[in-house]
Amino acid sequence: MDLKIRKAKKSDAEGIINLIVELAIFEKLVPPDRNAQSRLVKHAFSDKPMFEILIALDDKTPIGYAFYFFTYSTFLAKQTMFLEDIFVSDRYRSGGVGKKLFDELLKIAKSKKCGRLDFTCLNWNKRAMKFYDRLGAKAMKEWVYYRMTL
Amino acid sequence: MDLKIRKAKKSDAEGIINLIVELAIFEKLVPPDRNAQSRLVKHAFSDKPMFEILIALDDKTPIGYAFYFFTYSTFLAKQTMFLEDIFVSDRYRSGGVGKKLFDELLKIAKSKKCGRLDFTCLNWNKRAMKFYDRLGAKAMKEWVYYRMTL
Repeated sequence: MDLKIRKAKKSDAEGIINLIVELAIFEKLVPPDRNAQSRLVKHAFSDKPMFEILIALDDKTPIGYAFYFFTYSTFLAKQTMFLEDIFVSDRYRSGGVGKKLFDELLKIAKSKKCGRLDFTCLNWNKRAMKFYDRLGAKAMKEWVYYRMTL
Repeated sequence: MDLKIRKAKKSDAEGIINLIVELAIFEKLVPPDRNAQSRLVKHAFSDKPMFEILIALDDKTPIGYAFYFFTYSTFLAKQTMFLEDIFVSDRYRSGGVGKKLFDELLKIAKSKKCGRLDFTCLNWNKRAMKFYDRLGAKAMKEWVYYRMTL
């Protein structure tokens, strides 16, 4: 494998969309429809991007990505890196790609003086949870995540 | 009570800090120290604020606040309003202040075309959870919240 991780460019959009659909199927969630896909590309690659993307490539093939943005901890009074999605295509799992994406995320978070890197995980995704445990992430079991759909 | 809710200004900083310390004690968490307090004020009221604040006043007395910022849902391809903290001072509880803060948050979220309003709650805070249930918020029990401390 000729693994490369870098910030995504607009020309990566199609490859990223294909991976998002693969992630949605894996997570048993509804993938973004055509309209949502084009909004997503617009929001990612505008002058004021709403989130940032790291892409993992094997030679020139997109095989994984991480979507992240910066939130804020009022108690630390520091930014938090929030990892919205991290995904590695099925046949590339267990090859260290996820770990390399995390290494790069941590590098960016530290350069921004973030106090935390936060993310969520589906409770049936035991493989991912083992991976996060190995990285030293802590499941915040005393916090319940709430959502109002607008 | 002469309740007023509006966006916070720099002159509200001292009142907000006092309420944050009250919240930290209530949540049994460590409140921000002096340095963190001054960073917080800087981050809130700079040209590019890292988060936004609604303040609730009884006449001119600060009695509650909501800290929020905008995250992103890649599946909806829409912004999410994330409510980082909402707090009403002890002796003003059950007076409808929290509900009014939420009404205002929802108005802002809808004006920004957000698809969701997300937040977290400590699992022993049954009173808050009942309040969120009444508002129609859903506890996302299938998601585990993870954190890496940097």
